[in-house]
Amino acid sequence: MFTFLLTNDDGYFSEGIRALRSALKQIGRVVCVAPDRNLSGVGHSLTFNSPLRIRRIEEDFWTVIGGTPADCIHFGYYLILEGKKPHMVCSGINDGPNLGEDITYSGTVSGAMEGRILGIPSIAFSVFGREDIDFTQVADVAKQVVIKALEEGMPEDAYLNVNIPNLRREEIKGFLITKQGRRSYKEKVLKLSDPQGKPIYWITAEQFGWMLEEGTDYWAVYHGYVSITPLQLDMTNYRALEELKSSWKL
Amino acid sequence: MFTFLLTNDDGYFSEGIRALRSALKQIGRVVCVAPDRNLSGVGHSLTFNSPLRIRRIEEDFWTVIGGTPADCIHFGYYLILEGKKPHMVCSGINDGPNLGEDITYSGTVSGAMEGRILGIPSIAFSVFGREDIDFTQVADVAKQVVIKALEEGMPEDAYLNVNIPNLRREEIKGFLITKQGRRSYKEKVLKLSDPQGKPIYWITAEQFGWMLEEGTDYWAVYHGYVSITPLQLDMTNYRALEELKSSWKL
Repeated sequence: MFTFLLTNDDGYFSEGIRALRSALKQIGRVVCVAPDRNLSGVGHSLTFNSPLRIRRIEEDFWTVIGGTPADCIHFGYYLILEGKKPHMVCSGINDGPNLGEDITYSGTVSGAMEGRILGIPSIAFSVFGREDIDFTQVADVAKQVVIKALEEGMPEDAYLNVNIPNLRREEIKGFLITKQGRRSYKEKVLKLSDPQGKPIYWITAEQFGWMLEEGTDYWAVYHGYVSITPLQLDMTNYRALEELKSSWKL
Repeated sequence: MFTFLLTNDDGYFSEGIRALRSALKQIGRVVCVAPDRNLSGVGHSLTFNSPLRIRRIEEDFWTVIGGTPADCIHFGYYLILEGKKPHMVCSGINDGPNLGEDITYSGTVSGAMEGRILGIPSIAFSVFGREDIDFTQVADVAKQVVIKALEEGMPEDAYLNVNIPNLRREEIKGFLITKQGRRSYKEKVLKLSDPQGKPIYWITAEQFGWMLEEGTDYWAVYHGYVSITPLQLDMTNYRALEELKSSWKL
């Protein structure tokens, strides 16, 4: 029987993780360890400067109080599964997309990154859409990708970032292997007032937009395809490495 | 005159950021915006689900209450510098190294990553060493790298992760352009008791160790060189992309 370790960054109470858990339970044991609150934007954060507590919610479902997705994967692997590797780490389904450079902030993608660091095949799932999301249907598509990955295997130095359009099954055009795209929007810092009239500031996007380059994650979901992007842990820019080696006299 | 935007993940009160600020002040204006507490391990976390407050500490030195390094860069760029690009974003000097896969957790590296996302040449600085660190000397070496980068320019799609050995200037063997290395240690989750006897858990490293592969960040600092690793925002694994395209029939 397959064992899955599941986390997310929206919190254990979110619809996305519940739907993915139900879908994966059809093909194996699903150990869920998820944060106790919404941590969207938390990035690849690991808590090693303070202790954490874990609470059992129901059978094979736990929450790490104050824990990040990466913390949850550690707790699931070392504590709940006692160091026995699951067949796969899954993260999500995130309530909203994870595309382009934004994946560097993503707690969902970081959950899968942590699984890869621990040597486990790992997949992050997000939904492209913001309203009226049918998570049951999205989870069913996610399950298809999981089965494919189990059947075909995954490259040892890669983990997957999967974005699924919020469309009816028959409207989805298919699956595309993609590269990370680029966004065309920027943030701004908005000045507001607290109830006492003191200034507070809120980081927000000025206007959402993406470069519609063919072959990218955004292009795929925008056109109704499921986007599957293989990611890697090595962040080295090898082209720049050669350039600096030849141009910087050090 | 050059303008620098400076942040870190150890907090505004840390010796590393003070030393780097002093060194960079010799060549330009230095706007510091740093977290109000130690955030080591925070990764590339951005706060967009709640507002933040900013407090002025002294001239051109600010702290974002509850803010991450990425938040601080946003506040510095959009609020303090009013959207005018500084010549460079610097992050650090981190109290300890940032090498191999660990950079994915690093708030220091994420400060520089944020600068790169905003289109600004960016460098993260960390010290290889844990005890008796002479930050003034390390900052002097960091300043040398900054001057080199200003003189030679930096590739548009790269930012730099610089690790400086905690050695006397004359003991440093030189500068090496390196690739991201790999660690050979793993974490564990330690079970402890709180004062009431209830279980708490602490994520810690089982045993530190790195693969001493030539050409890597770790190899460089271990042998007494300053390591300069160019990083990129694109996390796509292109080799795996081709592999999946040909092997997964979707």
